[in-house]
Amino acid sequence: MSGSFDVVDLIRAKRDGRPVDPRAVDWLVDAYTRGLVADEQMSAYLMAVVWRGMTPAELDRWTAAMIDSGERLDLTGVGRPTVDKHSTGGVGDKVSLVLVPLVAACGAAVPQLAGRGLGHTGGTLDKMEAIPGWRADLSAARMRELLAEVGAVIAAAGAGLAPADRRLYALRDVTGTVESIPLIASSIMSKKIAEGTSALVLDVKVGSGAFMTSVDEARELARTMVRIGVAAGVRTEALLTGMDHPLGRTAGHALEVAEAVETLRGGGPADLVEVTVALARVMIDLVAAELGHRSGALHDPAQVLAAGDAFAVWRAMVAAQGGDPDAPLPAASHVETVPAPATGHLHRLDARAVGLAAWRLGAGRVRKEDAVSATAGVRWRVGIGDPVTAGEPLLELHTDDPASVERAREALAGAVEVAATPPPSTPLVLDHIS
Amino acid sequence: MSGSFDVVDLIRAKRDGRPVDPRAVDWLVDAYTRGLVADEQMSAYLMAVVWRGMTPAELDRWTAAMIDSGERLDLTGVGRPTVDKHSTGGVGDKVSLVLVPLVAACGAAVPQLAGRGLGHTGGTLDKMEAIPGWRADLSAARMRELLAEVGAVIAAAGAGLAPADRRLYALRDVTGTVESIPLIASSIMSKKIAEGTSALVLDVKVGSGAFMTSVDEARELARTMVRIGVAAGVRTEALLTGMDHPLGRTAGHALEVAEAVETLRGGGPADLVEVTVALARVMIDLVAAELGHRSGALHDPAQVLAAGDAFAVWRAMVAAQGGDPDAPLPAASHVETVPAPATGHLHRLDARAVGLAAWRLGAGRVRKEDAVSATAGVRWRVGIGDPVTAGEPLLELHTDDPASVERAREALAGAVEVAATPPPSTPLVLDHIS
Repeated sequence: MSGSFDVVDLIRAKRDGRPVDPRAVDWLVDAYTRGLVADEQMSAYLMAVVWRGMTPAELDRWTAAMIDSGERLDLTGVGRPTVDKHSTGGVGDKVSLVLVPLVAACGAAVPQLAGRGLGHTGGTLDKMEAIPGWRADLSAARMRELLAEVGAVIAAAGAGLAPADRRLYALRDVTGTVESIPLIASSIMSKKIAEGTSALVLDVKVGSGAFMTSVDEARELARTMVRIGVAAGVRTEALLTGMDHPLGRTAGHALEVAEAVETLRGGGPADLVEVTVALARVMIDLVAAELGHRSGALHDPAQVLAAGDAFAVWRAMVAAQGGDPDAPLPAASHVETVPAPATGHLHRLDARAVGLAAWRLGAGRVRKEDAVSATAGVRWRVGIGDPVTAGEPLLELHTDDPASVERAREALAGAVEVAATPPPSTPLVLDHIS
Repeated sequence: MSGSFDVVDLIRAKRDGRPVDPRAVDWLVDAYTRGLVADEQMSAYLMAVVWRGMTPAELDRWTAAMIDSGERLDLTGVGRPTVDKHSTGGVGDKVSLVLVPLVAACGAAVPQLAGRGLGHTGGTLDKMEAIPGWRADLSAARMRELLAEVGAVIAAAGAGLAPADRRLYALRDVTGTVESIPLIASSIMSKKIAEGTSALVLDVKVGSGAFMTSVDEARELARTMVRIGVAAGVRTEALLTGMDHPLGRTAGHALEVAEAVETLRGGGPADLVEVTVALARVMIDLVAAELGHRSGALHDPAQVLAAGDAFAVWRAMVAAQGGDPDAPLPAASHVETVPAPATGHLHRLDARAVGLAAWRLGAGRVRKEDAVSATAGVRWRVGIGDPVTAGEPLLELHTDDPASVERAREALAGAVEVAATPPPSTPLVLDHIS
């Protein structure tokens, strides 16, 4: 490391909005990771960052320091171009389950290392773990093998990737310093860059069911992440996609796996297909030069998905990690319904309310160490704009704990709106940042 | 306590500038003092306070919660009206040593509970401890006795007074959250209110040698503290006094005691006398009604000081705490001088530089647990505006550690300015806030 710094001086500089020496940024992240800077000092620094922000150069350095706190995977030997996706998280967001095998079916390798969900949005690993036998843990060597053979991996990010981020995130979670664009962007990008992918697409969700509720904020986050990725040598682009309504027709782990499988077989809800194909196209474009070299022809993801080619990759991917792609998924012991409140067209289904209901039914966790229920969740029987009749079952509440239903119903109060005509159709992809 | 709150919600409310429930303020201070809120959470909250400030109602509640964390002394039985002074600290500030016996000689009781110095300004207890035999610790019962008999007490604030402030101050010191008007004001006022005084004058120092370098900031701090005091039922007023030049002619514990004694005997430097008398007049005015009742006549502090009446009180006060008022004060083994750089009038003597030099000679401490040297310090042989001749000894550097002199001289580089004419005389008392 490059010398030592006075941490109180650093906190005061950030607090007063004065420039921070780039070497001091390196020192601070390293010293915190090694326990030389106390939690109470780092949390004060983080609150000052929420207040004052970071310059681009400072943010690149901060991200690099988090990556340098651990190992960076080397995926150069897998024989395919690597490209990954990260989503900022939304309700019913099972896109990865379809997208990873789809992009692999188009010839690329997708090294998706994921985390677990906290709060009202479920994590990709939680969803995959609904598949009987499937295991999230994978060694780096086995991951490289699978990327070469199958092209698709969804696995748990090991403790060796950006450990500083893990410590910082835990601190931010208890100190009210989560909501900061530079801190969010560096947390996401440090892990994705450390993962070793050569290209990356970011799915930044906007709307009531997303972390970012305004398009302007979401765009700023997307631009910040794209800039960090490009500065670190990872080809990075972002799509802003809508999350006012939940995606697809289900929220809950086993329910979402079933929906993903339906989509991989060439069916599935139109909105899920639209977002997945849009992301796949960006990913394929990002590695087009290398893919062209390799295969001589580009595939259109929409055709590949409709043809069911991605489903074969899915089966191999699940089986490679101990899962049985043919085993029946677990089902909830108790299902109740919520009737349509009127006759007309489904006008609005509030994503945050649906996420909260699924969480209360058992799909989410309050603490990192909590177990989630694979079977709990919500299914809505029609999509936005579809006709409904007053009193007919509209929502299904799935749970193994009937006592949870009452609070799930409370979460859904006012979440459903039925109107005489369908809502105007709005595009799901709101912007493309490259 | 009134219920329980989610500390992360509280931090986020303060961070976003939203109103904070007054009961939540009570809860937060109490929960932190009892260890239920972690240091990293409180430091994030404090940084958010530096950012967002506090409303008056919130600040009163915060101060009250700090007082409620410990005991509040009851001084109603001492038979004299109680009035105290607090200074925000300056270089060469030995005012308390003269003021406390002076106000007692005028008939009031002064219950001065003080702390120790950190950094470039020395603490009153450190100065008093230069007197052979003098002890800072005093029980509350003995303090009440001395206030009744002598009227003057300078002693260490016990651990039972505003313990929350002690914990918060230690946290602020290492997390860059010292510089905040509401946090400074509540820290000072919680201790002074808990001390049990019925009236209080604040000496808010402004200038290069003070914590507050701008008059506007100092005035805001003074107004904030006066408001808190009045709201808590303590008659409180403040003077803003200049601290561009150090006060008197000495900075260093034994040197300052000697200067205070000279002043108590009716001599002493004019600036020290001016500030002390101005503060004494405000203090006597604050308790005038009770004093008039009691003695039938008010004393003018300037006359009392000139007549040497305060000196008798000083002797009794020192002796009551084990000190020998006739014992010679310790003297440094090593004295060097700094010559006047030119012939003319002393135009400027930078207070911060003098404070830093005294600190480097051994008068200050880096950590709370460090010992200070009683003998170390700086004396300047002439006052601002006085004539000097190039090459004549102007500053004396006193120390028991000759190796420290070099760095003290470095601190003083550029601190002395000599000009052809004296500087325009500026008033020492800049404002009176009541």
